[in-house]
Amino acid sequence: MKPIRLGMVGGGSGAFIGAIHRIAARMDGHFQLVAGALSSDPTRAQASADELGLRSYSDFNDMAQAEAAREDGIQAVSIVTPNHMHAAPAVAFLRAGIHVICDKPLAATPEQAAQIAGAAAESRARFFLTHNYSALPMVREARALVAEGALGDIRLVQAEYLQGWLSDDAQSKQADWRTDPARAGAGALGDIGTHAWQLAGFVTGMTPSHVSADLSSMVPGRPIDDDARVALRYPSGTKGGLWASQVAVGQENGLSLRVFGTKAALEWRLDTSERLVFTPKDGPAQIMTRAQDRSGSFRTPPGHPEGYLEGFANLYSDVAAIIRGDDSNADRVPGLADGLSGMAFIAAAKQSSDRDGAWVEVMA
Amino acid sequence: MKPIRLGMVGGGSGAFIGAIHRIAARMDGHFQLVAGALSSDPTRAQASADELGLRSYSDFNDMAQAEAAREDGIQAVSIVTPNHMHAAPAVAFLRAGIHVICDKPLAATPEQAAQIAGAAAESRARFFLTHNYSALPMVREARALVAEGALGDIRLVQAEYLQGWLSDDAQSKQADWRTDPARAGAGALGDIGTHAWQLAGFVTGMTPSHVSADLSSMVPGRPIDDDARVALRYPSGTKGGLWASQVAVGQENGLSLRVFGTKAALEWRLDTSERLVFTPKDGPAQIMTRAQDRSGSFRTPPGHPEGYLEGFANLYSDVAAIIRGDDSNADRVPGLADGLSGMAFIAAAKQSSDRDGAWVEVMA
Amino acid sequence: MKPIRLGMVGGGSGAFIGAIHRIAARMDGHFQLVAGALSSDPTRAQASADELGLRSYSDFNDMAQAEAAREDGIQAVSIVTPNHMHAAPAVAFLRAGIHVICDKPLAATPEQAAQIAGAAAESRARFFLTHNYSALPMVREARALVAEGALGDIRLVQAEYLQGWLSDDAQSKQADWRTDPARAGAGALGDIGTHAWQLAGFVTGMTPSHVSADLSSMVPGRPIDDDARVALRYPSGTKGGLWASQVAVGQENGLSLRVFGTKAALEWRLDTSERLVFTPKDGPAQIMTRAQDRSGSFRTPPGHPEGYLEGFANLYSDVAAIIRGDDSNADRVPGLADGLSGMAFIAAAKQSSDRDGAWVEVMA
Amino acid sequence: MKPIRLGMVGGGSGAFIGAIHRIAARMDGHFQLVAGALSSDPTRAQASADELGLRSYSDFNDMAQAEAAREDGIQAVSIVTPNHMHAAPAVAFLRAGIHVICDKPLAATPEQAAQIAGAAAESRARFFLTHNYSALPMVREARALVAEGALGDIRLVQAEYLQGWLSDDAQSKQADWRTDPARAGAGALGDIGTHAWQLAGFVTGMTPSHVSADLSSMVPGRPIDDDARVALRYPSGTKGGLWASQVAVGQENGLSLRVFGTKAALEWRLDTSERLVFTPKDGPAQIMTRAQDRSGSFRTPPGHPEGYLEGFANLYSDVAAIIRGDDSNADRVPGLADGLSGMAFIAAAKQSSDRDGAWVEVMA
Repeated sequence: MKPIRLGMVGGGSGAFIGAIHRIAARMDGHFQLVAGALSSDPTRAQASADELGLRSYSDFNDMAQAEAAREDGIQAVSIVTPNHMHAAPAVAFLRAGIHVICDKPLAATPEQAAQIAGAAAESRARFFLTHNYSALPMVREARALVAEGALGDIRLVQAEYLQGWLSDDAQSKQADWRTDPARAGAGALGDIGTHAWQLAGFVTGMTPSHVSADLSSMVPGRPIDDDARVALRYPSGTKGGLWASQVAVGQENGLSLRVFGTKAALEWRLDTSERLVFTPKDGPAQIMTRAQDRSGSFRTPPGHPEGYLEGFANLYSDVAAIIRGDDSNADRVPGLADGLSGMAFIAAAKQSSDRDGAWVEVMA
Repeated sequence: MKPIRLGMVGGGSGAFIGAIHRIAARMDGHFQLVAGALSSDPTRAQASADELGLRSYSDFNDMAQAEAAREDGIQAVSIVTPNHMHAAPAVAFLRAGIHVICDKPLAATPEQAAQIAGAAAESRARFFLTHNYSALPMVREARALVAEGALGDIRLVQAEYLQGWLSDDAQSKQADWRTDPARAGAGALGDIGTHAWQLAGFVTGMTPSHVSADLSSMVPGRPIDDDARVALRYPSGTKGGLWASQVAVGQENGLSLRVFGTKAALEWRLDTSERLVFTPKDGPAQIMTRAQDRSGSFRTPPGHPEGYLEGFANLYSDVAAIIRGDDSNADRVPGLADGLSGMAFIAAAKQSSDRDGAWVEVMA
Repeated sequence: MKPIRLGMVGGGSGAFIGAIHRIAARMDGHFQLVAGALSSDPTRAQASADELGLRSYSDFNDMAQAEAAREDGIQAVSIVTPNHMHAAPAVAFLRAGIHVICDKPLAATPEQAAQIAGAAAESRARFFLTHNYSALPMVREARALVAEGALGDIRLVQAEYLQGWLSDDAQSKQADWRTDPARAGAGALGDIGTHAWQLAGFVTGMTPSHVSADLSSMVPGRPIDDDARVALRYPSGTKGGLWASQVAVGQENGLSLRVFGTKAALEWRLDTSERLVFTPKDGPAQIMTRAQDRSGSFRTPPGHPEGYLEGFANLYSDVAAIIRGDDSNADRVPGLADGLSGMAFIAAAKQSSDRDGAWVEVMA
Repeated sequence: MKPIRLGMVGGGSGAFIGAIHRIAARMDGHFQLVAGALSSDPTRAQASADELGLRSYSDFNDMAQAEAAREDGIQAVSIVTPNHMHAAPAVAFLRAGIHVICDKPLAATPEQAAQIAGAAAESRARFFLTHNYSALPMVREARALVAEGALGDIRLVQAEYLQGWLSDDAQSKQADWRTDPARAGAGALGDIGTHAWQLAGFVTGMTPSHVSADLSSMVPGRPIDDDARVALRYPSGTKGGLWASQVAVGQENGLSLRVFGTKAALEWRLDTSERLVFTPKDGPAQIMTRAQDRSGSFRTPPGHPEGYLEGFANLYSDVAAIIRGDDSNADRVPGLADGLSGMAFIAAAKQSSDRDGAWVEVMA
């Protein structure tokens, strides 16, 4: 099978997530990166593209049109720009009939999100959102367990995403745009809170109808939330909590999910990402590993640690299958609905926090 | 040094916490149990007392008067009855000039709490409340670290107490009164939530000024809360969360505390009670053990596991020292103020939950 | 039921293991300590006895005779002296018809061990050896799992007991006699190696027939072993290893056991003493807790940490039952056979190490 | 920088380690796979090569000559055949001046190893051995800590590699040649024991001079060792142990290393591969992560789990640098000396086991 021709918007030299997407795209051999608009600075765009041996564009609109016109043009594009720069390229490539693989969250504003949704509705091309953590094998197994009823009725859900790297007013390229309301839209809530939101939804198959939020800016002078505590209510009566923080000193990347049902509970933590703790009501906790996984989302035998990059690669491989016409795993690949749900979560949480924690409906 | 003569109210055969108090009282040899009103059922009271070789009373008021009149009467009494039966004996013994060691929470209602407070104010006898978890060595070390500024300014506090044993409508003596509003006053909130509240306050030295709560009765037909999610706000701007649940399937006794400051973080969990994880902002996490403890609250070298009973025994030993006139460690022994604070927490959380999560001031 | 009258030899002020035995004896209320020969120094013996309110003896032979003659004399005695002082008092009390509870290892020399064995054979009194770790609930459950065949045929056994406290030539009362060949008999091998040996035997129900050992004195000038590596061969073809070290820097009290069979494996570690990891060949690891224990060897519900002192107390409670005529649990209480097995292990390991690791038969 | 042109011998469809090498080679973009002799079966070789888009050869000798003659011929070759088929292709490519990246162990027999050594000595091409675990960041950091003296003098070394997958006489392509003495040379000892041996040597910088071994075939009828217990003695007086087993039921891939020095200890386990526990003699254990790593051997920030594939990719990236002329990290890349050391270990362990555990010198 020939690799799918891939383009990239953003991800010039020094970028973080662009390099991740490139490794993920080549890990399983399903994609070949051939073109890019890697930077809004034309010189830098060209230099970065040369380093990678790509056709270079200084403008993503030009790129979308030119690639669509080429016989050997890209079939899919990865968008790895800051949040406020997702919508414009996404719309351009969707209109050009080119599949879009977009980093999360969907956009910086509800308006931008709506633009993407509109373009997607009118395009024959597909839209994917890289909520990579939900592509890890033990997360997929967790979802399977819930879906088959192994937990019974779900009563309690607790999702956390704790980081400490923004506990100071440190300056870095990564920190810069993430703490700028104009470019990020939301702080901890958007950057990592949406991951926790999507993870909880992916595993439980349920979405909260109402949230009550308390957003804080713990670092003096910071114009955006760096700590978000959100209480969740589900239509079923299930209660939950979501806590996202970037000022939790000492936490490197503390994503975790706990779900308690009437029959069993499960716990998953990113820092032991290849273990899933499943505890039946009347028995010992079971430490599930990939030996128990039924998704097949890995490359090595159990006990050979895989992780973050492989999670991204799982998504790219699933996307490749879809692009090649195989939709059998499409339901586990995050897409527009996840993005819109995340945007609705951000909007409701902000509104609730502004109203001192009043319960606000999530309008997905 | 001669053992302190101790009495007990409650704790007849089949009782749980009474047996715990008796082991704790004799572990370090500071107390000798000599008298008791072990049950409201006179026959059972006598039988239980006979088994333990105690002077038996069928009424705690008689006991308070008789013991106060004897030359060799009890010097202290342990009250280990259900919550609604704390106040009457506590008042009786305080009035008789006999020190009171009372199980938590302070009482089932604010009125009962006020009665104890009134009696304590007029008595020369002391009042102690057995929040045993805060007497464990690594918790005491955690408190010392916060007090000396090792964490910097505290930004985030998260306390959890998760159990699964009431996830069904099972019947047992222990479950029975704990799910009866008249006898317990509050459910998860009172039985375990007050432990988490006291633990967070003990370690951080701070008390939230406002709470926003969502109380649930997850088991159909249960007339009392079995899950309590409470958001916390401190006068300093610190934010926090407290989650107490008795329907968290698979959780045996999951008490934990996490505190994040500007300079460091700490995490303690009851299921690894002899480890304290201290993570400075710019260095590896440190797994502190009793080798680092400075409270001396143990009997064996590090690596020889101690736990629950020893925590109770630490309290009894501290109480013995106070009764014998040594107040040097009195500040680490929970007492009336802790009890009243717990009652204020329960009241505020209930009020907030009734008002759909509105922020309510904690009137301690 | 009236407490059993208990005496003690050794355990004067400043002693470690004597205080442990006293707490264990009183924890469950089955014993009352009434007499002692607490020190070979008469003044110190008297002072220590006064502090504890005991009848004091300056000589254990006098004590054995006097107590045997009294109507209210002791029924059992705890021997908590250094290894070389076990045999003489054990023989004296056994001859006087008083039950003996002796700390491990059995003795400092094979000759002393034989004296105890001889006296025990001629006495109607019982002899118990406090291998306390095998009295912890999850260890007892491990043994039950092996006994019922849950592991299939056992192939591999690995026992470790690692400490770091003797990594220097530090001076202390505890270190002093333990590194003196005349008083200790053996170093790491005897002090902790015999614990690991007994633990492995207790759980697996099997004893190695041959050992190959490499004993070292890692601290320059130390006249006794402080590190012992022993390979084990069982009659069944099972292979094993035992590693005991007192120079494993950073290890507080690292006792552990791993057993691999044809059908399942189990792992137990003292630092997580209330968990037993059971891994069937074709399924996830199960984290067993006291909720799965079938020995009933505890005082609190699962999740309320118990440990070292409670293990000792389990032994004292079992011993009390035996003294009172109930032998139903006698097979789980270590006694003379365990002591002689430990002595045979020491002798065989020393001989093997002297012969550069030649395989030596264990002559139990 | 243009990718290095890479060939492969072995690794046809269905192979395990060949696919791993391919992912590792492309992960960081330093290699492009262009040619292969993927199977000894010509039809299968061609089919596998077609699938990967490679120039296909049915014979590795032809391949070596043809590629050496091409202007655009391969610059390096990966050898991923069973052990007994390492030497012949390695010699062929070394003679052709093509760099060799060979899977471990070096060979099935000492004679084969000597052939490789001879060819390497006469070739200008380099020889690399993929002991991938020593390329993980925390292992490299462990080595740096030892090298800078953070542990003081090393006293004790314990390496383990435990797997359970061969606990039955199950048939599979992977199991087949690994349990055939002719193709594997050694069983657990060679397949995983050499990994543990290299890991211990890499981290400590020391090699044992003598071993005493006990090799077993636990599965009835198996003609090769599946459990190897080896005691180690170092010239410095350091003692150690190495345990490799393929019948340790429930163990997926349990590689671990513990090192105890006079000043500190360290512990690393593959199942928590991104943590290194460093315990100074007088302080709490420190949980080091990539935040403390100084090797830079990773692609993502701390907290984003990397693992097995990335370890392989670290080696491929280091090899790429060396091929391109940068030897600054050559000392951390395993090569011929490691391979010969592993062979000497196997030979000495077999000889010792045949002589009932006699201490045998390791003739490296």
